[in-house]
Amino acid sequence: MTDTVPRTRTPPHPVPDLPDLSPDELDGLARAVRGRLVDVVTRNGGHLGSNLGVVELTLALHRVFRSPRDRIVFDTGHQSYVHKMLTGRAGAFDDLRREGGLSGYPSRSESPHDLVENSHASTALSYADGLARAARLRGEHDRHVVAVVGDGALTGGMAWEALNNIGAGDLPVVVVLNDNGRSYSPTGGAVGAHLAALRAGRASSAFAELGLRYLGPVDGHDVARVEEALRAAKALRRPVVVHCATRKGKGHPPAEDDPIDHMHAVGSPASPRGPGWTSAFGRHLPTLADRHPDLVCLTAAMLHPTGLTAFAEAFPDRVVDTGVAEQHAVTCAAGLAMGGLRPLVAVCSTFLTRAVDQVLMDVALHRLPVTLVLDRAGVTGEDGPSHHGVWDLALLRVVPGLRIAAPRDGTRLRALLDEAVAGDGPSAVRFPEGALGADVPEVERVGGVDVLHRSWRRDVLLVTAGALAADGVAAAVRLNGEGVGVTVCDPRWVSPVDPGLVELAAGHRVVACVEDGVRGGGVGEGVAAALRAAGLRQRVLVLGLPNEFLPHGARADILRLHDLDAAGIARSVTRCLAGGFT
Amino acid sequence: MTDTVPRTRTPPHPVPDLPDLSPDELDGLARAVRGRLVDVVTRNGGHLGSNLGVVELTLALHRVFRSPRDRIVFDTGHQSYVHKMLTGRAGAFDDLRREGGLSGYPSRSESPHDLVENSHASTALSYADGLARAARLRGEHDRHVVAVVGDGALTGGMAWEALNNIGAGDLPVVVVLNDNGRSYSPTGGAVGAHLAALRAGRASSAFAELGLRYLGPVDGHDVARVEEALRAAKALRRPVVVHCATRKGKGHPPAEDDPIDHMHAVGSPASPRGPGWTSAFGRHLPTLADRHPDLVCLTAAMLHPTGLTAFAEAFPDRVVDTGVAEQHAVTCAAGLAMGGLRPLVAVCSTFLTRAVDQVLMDVALHRLPVTLVLDRAGVTGEDGPSHHGVWDLALLRVVPGLRIAAPRDGTRLRALLDEAVAGDGPSAVRFPEGALGADVPEVERVGGVDVLHRSWRRDVLLVTAGALAADGVAAAVRLNGEGVGVTVCDPRWVSPVDPGLVELAAGHRVVACVEDGVRGGGVGEGVAAALRAAGLRQRVLVLGLPNEFLPHGARADILRLHDLDAAGIARSVTRCLAGGFT
Repeated sequence: MTDTVPRTRTPPHPVPDLPDLSPDELDGLARAVRGRLVDVVTRNGGHLGSNLGVVELTLALHRVFRSPRDRIVFDTGHQSYVHKMLTGRAGAFDDLRREGGLSGYPSRSESPHDLVENSHASTALSYADGLARAARLRGEHDRHVVAVVGDGALTGGMAWEALNNIGAGDLPVVVVLNDNGRSYSPTGGAVGAHLAALRAGRASSAFAELGLRYLGPVDGHDVARVEEALRAAKALRRPVVVHCATRKGKGHPPAEDDPIDHMHAVGSPASPRGPGWTSAFGRHLPTLADRHPDLVCLTAAMLHPTGLTAFAEAFPDRVVDTGVAEQHAVTCAAGLAMGGLRPLVAVCSTFLTRAVDQVLMDVALHRLPVTLVLDRAGVTGEDGPSHHGVWDLALLRVVPGLRIAAPRDGTRLRALLDEAVAGDGPSAVRFPEGALGADVPEVERVGGVDVLHRSWRRDVLLVTAGALAADGVAAAVRLNGEGVGVTVCDPRWVSPVDPGLVELAAGHRVVACVEDGVRGGGVGEGVAAALRAAGLRQRVLVLGLPNEFLPHGARADILRLHDLDAAGIARSVTRCLAGGFT
Repeated sequence: MTDTVPRTRTPPHPVPDLPDLSPDELDGLARAVRGRLVDVVTRNGGHLGSNLGVVELTLALHRVFRSPRDRIVFDTGHQSYVHKMLTGRAGAFDDLRREGGLSGYPSRSESPHDLVENSHASTALSYADGLARAARLRGEHDRHVVAVVGDGALTGGMAWEALNNIGAGDLPVVVVLNDNGRSYSPTGGAVGAHLAALRAGRASSAFAELGLRYLGPVDGHDVARVEEALRAAKALRRPVVVHCATRKGKGHPPAEDDPIDHMHAVGSPASPRGPGWTSAFGRHLPTLADRHPDLVCLTAAMLHPTGLTAFAEAFPDRVVDTGVAEQHAVTCAAGLAMGGLRPLVAVCSTFLTRAVDQVLMDVALHRLPVTLVLDRAGVTGEDGPSHHGVWDLALLRVVPGLRIAAPRDGTRLRALLDEAVAGDGPSAVRFPEGALGADVPEVERVGGVDVLHRSWRRDVLLVTAGALAADGVAAAVRLNGEGVGVTVCDPRWVSPVDPGLVELAAGHRVVACVEDGVRGGGVGEGVAAALRAAGLRQRVLVLGLPNEFLPHGARADILRLHDLDAAGIARSVTRCLAGGFT
């Protein structure tokens, strides 16, 4: 039998003397940990408020449970910095989120104490159920399983699927509910209200109705109280929720006082600045809202990060924040469209994978005019493998009747949003995070396709998706210098393939498609298929990202590494023309 | 402002005199409806038990609410036959599920009383939230919104995402909980236990903790009682759950007494018979289980339909039924794998779209040895657009490190299951519903690819995925007769592309790929990409289904219509060789 987590018979405590520390020593350790969090995260960027809120809770966890024998799963994982410091990585913490340094999320290659790398919310309870079942089936009766989940994660449906399973059984699963009252924004909805009532001692627990014991609420910043509750939970050897009331940003006044999200995450000083894609979207929304009185915007607990704040202030009735609930957001949008409105769902590209079924079956099957606005698409940078938005084009291209736009600059962002919202069927508009570059004007339009650059020779048609247009034009200039004639075009709507693209392709020897999504299943393959179907026999070169999980790193660095900068694009085209195809 | 549902100012009751019927007349109508259900569904196939259980409930609904002004959304929609009869389609009911006849699910083209065609579970509450929000924003204060959901649907997470939103608001959403204690099988888990406690008057309601008023339980077969509860709910003009206890199969002894699923659905007498794919899978499981003591099987409320019954009887500890919770099933499997076991998730192909994120981020990111067994893949037949399993190949092909097998016959089904479960990474094995054909032996193996047919001329390499192999061989024989030399091969593992396939392709002028999934993003495009990457310039013909929602119909008929039978494949190849490419 294989075991993907190394087993340790008599596991040492991560910090060898952690269980022996006196209350004063624990206080000192908590202060030291907090100081390191503020120092390093302020310098390197990362999740600050969420980690400041779990310092005492994590100390108590590691005093009561023995990782890695006991399995501790952090939901989303952005609150795992303290855990990292306590499990042998305090020294390496200086290089958090730097290339070659510690990941901003749990990482199995870093430590046997890290189990789950996925940073999408609401999964920890399902992992815990599986881990606890495995331990029982393998006769490992000394193993405890702990899931650390935030209150925000309980607004996600799969957490309730897991509670339904855990609550019906008798496995020793300890659910540590890290309730700081918010995900980014305050946790709304009925779950948020219920937890608030529990904190105030004003309700019986819905967890108990679902078969879990409920312990709490306890002050999550009192190590001794948390420890006591965790020891009681551990001794029960059955499903139990330990409800810890914590404060996001605790102990660092700038974070405690931050009105937006208690410094949930802070950018590194090296992060790109200047007007960004998301804020350009947000600034265009009022224009759209004036033009379409039936426009309604939805977000899954990401009002501010997805750029909806100003719209929400101007039109509070026309915004729906569903909680961390992408499935509900998309299907609620379908209902709104069925009821005669024009819904726009603003969601990070990486989180749309939660709602593929809803886009397909609830929106597209009914041909409803729902617009998906996907920010942080393509390579996103420091947040690592589960945050890159490289899957959206390939997954959405499968959906019947869904039109997908990838604007190349701010002007096209506004224009394509206008077209998407005015349309009578489903659409998606996707764009990256970070700063907007300069506009890239067109020299001509063919069908719906913008031609950005022409050479008198027509060797290569370079088709660029979205923000890679500027690199495409720069690559063309390089290639021109080598005597290769290149036409650069931006299809604007990258799926389905525009007839203008087929028309353009017909006049060139080679067609090269560039996208910042995965190649396998992506829009380049769609172009190749459209050309084949049109009877064209041009060589097609598909340039994009491999179907792999990309590590964390700066967007520009990752794109360069995969030959998706101007020099890399030019190199790939040259190599293709020389006869090699890859 | 558009409104995708026709508005009727003074809507007539669907059955004009339904509100005026006396209790005796209602009883008579219920008996007549039940008689028609048994007659027609026994003859045409369809959902019997679920519709017999909602006769009185649906009569009460249409007496209290005025469709289509009031919006009635049926979750999954397989309990909508009575609704169809009461909304002008009693006459057409004879042709239920026949070509050109009534759909087995709500259908917007049939009637303005049908809103949601999607038959995936747990969506109705989200639609209802959207519809109610739209009505308020449009000032349509006379509109009520009703969601009819089963107890099984409440084991699906998105229902809780919706309850979290509905419960926090004050919109007039009436949730009619049609609690028959089961989906296919009895509803397990904590939710099932909680509903049973509510029915027995032994619990306070978790719905109330989440902000919804709770009315009930009421006897769902007593029209007067249901009507009274619905009128009370309607008058509240706020979110409310009406808990109706019903009996699946009610009033038809063979259904009431059916031990498996109370005749949830019955096949038409014309359905294909003989050993089927799913039962062949089920029969092979004990062999797999003996070989792998660490094998654990998971199902999302489909123990019997996915062929796990015998395994569950032999190894009750090694089966997990998660409820209608594909997300949890996949991530629980990830946890089981992380804990050292070998999980196999058996799920209908069409429902896997619910768990794309979990396959990607929870299983594949961690490179865990989870095997997905997808039955009812490809064209499924009479259940219509949302049941065809035509999306799986395109969606799964995107997932890094996931190997996808499509067995062509019973022998290959067993062999590929063996290889999948023995592997050390994620895998999927997909096969259609219906009867197994005869085995199609190979004449040779190249790399991992089975060659099924050789001609002395090598004009065309025909690559067939899964069960279409026999049609591919028959097409080759036809083409041979026309003087075209065809090699037919089955890659067995259709993704990633086997190097043997590239090797075979190199010796042929044209490569034609045949799959019973959507063309756009499917495995044929993957083969084309692999050949381009290898520098091959063969023409590639991708034969498959369009990226469209296919209507209901017999599998063979739909495949023939899309040229995916032997004659159609041969025709497409001939046309390609003649110079036309489509």
